[in-house]
Amino acid sequence: MTYCLAIKLEAGIVYCSDTRTTAGIDQVSAYSKMHDFSIENDRHIMLLSAGNLATSQAVISKLQTDIESNAVLNLHNAYSSHDVANYVALSLREEVSKFNSSNHEASMILGVQLANETRPQIMLIYPQGNFIITSNDTPFLQIGESKYGKPILDRVVEQTTTLSIAAAAAIVSMDSTIRSNVSVGAPIELCIYKESSFARCFYSKFTEDSAFLRDFQSSWDTGIKKAFNNLPPVEWSEVWETKTTN
Amino acid sequence: MTYCLAIKLEAGIVYCSDTRTTAGIDQVSAYSKMHDFSIENDRHIMLLSAGNLATSQAVISKLQTDIESNAVLNLHNAYSSHDVANYVALSLREEVSKFNSSNHEASMILGVQLANETRPQIMLIYPQGNFIITSNDTPFLQIGESKYGKPILDRVVEQTTTLSIAAAAAIVSMDSTIRSNVSVGAPIELCIYKESSFARCFYSKFTEDSAFLRDFQSSWDTGIKKAFNNLPPVEWSEVWETKTTN
Repeated sequence: MTYCLAIKLEAGIVYCSDTRTTAGIDQVSAYSKMHDFSIENDRHIMLLSAGNLATSQAVISKLQTDIESNAVLNLHNAYSSHDVANYVALSLREEVSKFNSSNHEASMILGVQLANETRPQIMLIYPQGNFIITSNDTPFLQIGESKYGKPILDRVVEQTTTLSIAAAAAIVSMDSTIRSNVSVGAPIELCIYKESSFARCFYSKFTEDSAFLRDFQSSWDTGIKKAFNNLPPVEWSEVWETKTTN
Repeated sequence: MTYCLAIKLEAGIVYCSDTRTTAGIDQVSAYSKMHDFSIENDRHIMLLSAGNLATSQAVISKLQTDIESNAVLNLHNAYSSHDVANYVALSLREEVSKFNSSNHEASMILGVQLANETRPQIMLIYPQGNFIITSNDTPFLQIGESKYGKPILDRVVEQTTTLSIAAAAAIVSMDSTIRSNVSVGAPIELCIYKESSFARCFYSKFTEDSAFLRDFQSSWDTGIKKAFNNLPPVEWSEVWETKTTN
């Protein structure tokens, strides 16, 4: 499996992905799942991929080739975010449809803002070639092994959250998933796009033993334990009664 | 779905379960999934059930009937925890095997200590009729919708954790799951068994709008936000570099 997420805030977009790919428990490798197709001062286009690695690579490679061959429609000449999303979705659907099996499916998260657009968007693209955007109440999207890391996002992330706090939430969400599921693993890639900056993303990659990630994890563990110690005590004598029936 | 968990500590056992059952999104009901077969001063036997409700009810009903009819082997005359587990597992397997479909499966968590035993045990019983116990490193078991609530248990629970902290962890784990997944819902049932007490469990049931649960949730949210504010800042200028390749 894989775990990727994107959070769309008023201030911009935070992307985070793991790098583990597995084909059986004895074939574990590290591949980046974060693909940046941006052009400075013109367009921000970021793709995260989860699912079958061959399918993801084929799609990314097609998108790249279309740019290089200056195809009639490609990521660098598309006129709107909607065109970009449709084009990526159809490319994914085409690749998936070569195989008649859910094993060959992949999903993608697309983040995009073109120079003529006032706001960026993120979309979750399904292997069937359709896609959804975020809502005001659910400003994040996840693909892959998404359940472990969802509660912390549900609790912390709102549209008005700062990029720094959202980046921290993304790392906690990723770290929780890595601890609970061996099919998701470090290094962790993190990328931040400031709304309407049309600049290259701030990007960082954290290995398992990076000093930052260790400090971060130990600080989070301390914080969680403090939060536990401050919870209202479960007073046995007061709150609790004996259950009387089966 | 459903979410049930049990934590086995040096001090005893904490059980927690939701009460939502769903057969399609327009058939939502509340059923207890916590079944206490203990006899004071003689034996502690607790069963949590997840999966097909008809299957769970049939098994619980058979166990109850066997007690009432004083069957040769029943929960109230079994001589060892292992006998209890085998008997429950076979009863579950027998019921599941009447249907040739995974839709009719159910899983159970069994907590048990008989008067002649020095330590209690918890077991996860699969629909196939086999079962596993906990280890020193993983002192908890989960059935049903278990992924959302696993990270907090992984971070907080060890064998030496107190019953109160473990109860709090169980409530946080349950509350996180309820927030992230509509197929799991309040009221929440919580039960604590003190090791070798052979007394009735401390039991409580929290509805969605109980004062305790509201205080608890708001205190946890505050604690989490504090933990976030104390995290080492993701210093963009220092830690971050521009990603240069696709």
